[in-house]
Amino acid sequence: MSAYNLILIRHGQSRWNQENRFTGWEDIDLSVQGVKEAKEAASLLKKNHLHFDLACTSVLKRAIRTLYIVLEKIDQLWIPVIKTWRLNERHYGGLTGLNKLETIKKYGAEQVHLWRRDYKTIPPLIEDVNQNKDRRYKDMLKLPIGESLYQTKTRVLPFWDKTIISHLKVGKKVLIVAHGNSLRALIKHVEGLSDEEIMKVEVPTGVPMAYTISIEDFKAENKRETLR
Amino acid sequence: MSAYNLILIRHGQSRWNQENRFTGWEDIDLSVQGVKEAKEAASLLKKNHLHFDLACTSVLKRAIRTLYIVLEKIDQLWIPVIKTWRLNERHYGGLTGLNKLETIKKYGAEQVHLWRRDYKTIPPLIEDVNQNKDRRYKDMLKLPIGESLYQTKTRVLPFWDKTIISHLKVGKKVLIVAHGNSLRALIKHVEGLSDEEIMKVEVPTGVPMAYTISIEDFKAENKRETLR
Repeated sequence: MSAYNLILIRHGQSRWNQENRFTGWEDIDLSVQGVKEAKEAASLLKKNHLHFDLACTSVLKRAIRTLYIVLEKIDQLWIPVIKTWRLNERHYGGLTGLNKLETIKKYGAEQVHLWRRDYKTIPPLIEDVNQNKDRRYKDMLKLPIGESLYQTKTRVLPFWDKTIISHLKVGKKVLIVAHGNSLRALIKHVEGLSDEEIMKVEVPTGVPMAYTISIEDFKAENKRETLR
Repeated sequence: MSAYNLILIRHGQSRWNQENRFTGWEDIDLSVQGVKEAKEAASLLKKNHLHFDLACTSVLKRAIRTLYIVLEKIDQLWIPVIKTWRLNERHYGGLTGLNKLETIKKYGAEQVHLWRRDYKTIPPLIEDVNQNKDRRYKDMLKLPIGESLYQTKTRVLPFWDKTIISHLKVGKKVLIVAHGNSLRALIKHVEGLSDEEIMKVEVPTGVPMAYTISIEDFKAENKRETLR
């Protein structure tokens, strides 16, 4: 039995990852390559004999489908799954849908790097979207209109504190399939990384990262380990 | 908007349905035909513009996969899903795995009809299986060793009373993807059918059945309606 009690996986490549566009809260599906990556992630979990008691994901289909493909391949479809907007990708505001290279041409590489990687830089905001809310967000008082990684972490952590910790505490093993930046928020928190350190962290699609989370302080006992 | 607030779907054909075997709690996958049936069920939900707030299913993959295929096709993958053993198929005890025609040859058509359709007839029991429990049942004190439809209903109803009703009560629309006999148990309850009447009810695979459940007494206002 593995000592890992937390596995993080970023969803497989989406169609907009493939087109190099900012995606954020747009509900873009997996690409063919993304489905393949999800299956490969499942093979690695299988090879490492990982069994889960709970899986958590966002309300976006690229993450939900990745999780489903994984659970099907590891024959653990029966485990409980929690879907929450708190694990959604960071909201990219006015950058949503834009091609990253074209955005660099327009605003310069430095600005785009800050928008993508800096901890507290906020993307251009969009107008209020609380009219005609998507049904999945109807219980939310206020939808984001653009978030920094810091703001993303602020809304991811209540889910960590309330739900994930309560499962880890009683010895459960948790699988989280989410997004580049909701995972960077979690990584910053459990590894205790500084605002500078998290800037350098890139999360590849479809690669399981394993932690042993201490059930004393709920911090990682190891630096994230890529499963092989 | 449809007035239906409860849709029941029996999973698509499984490999053992195809081989005409008693399946019960065996975790048998969908057949190719079963996947097709799940997709057809989704088309009917789509055509009828049905939107759900909650989906419930068993912990058996033929039901979970059917539900997933349906949610994917109707683009509602994000809705919460509850998986519970209480919606599992009736436990077929010593009949599990046997071919239905061979069982008729051995025990006679009348006995097999009673085992399959009678409300209180219990199948031959198996030995205690509480050693080496499947991980998904580890929190259950006592696993069934063979159930009548009546016993099945007895363990389905607490889930109806506690979880489904609490959602219907606040105006939510619920999709249940389950099994021939866990659904017959629900149908008997919401339609108020007698022990004799339920004997004649057959639930076809992959066909959505629609109810408007009164939020006064939580009984069906209509006889189950097959969606077209």
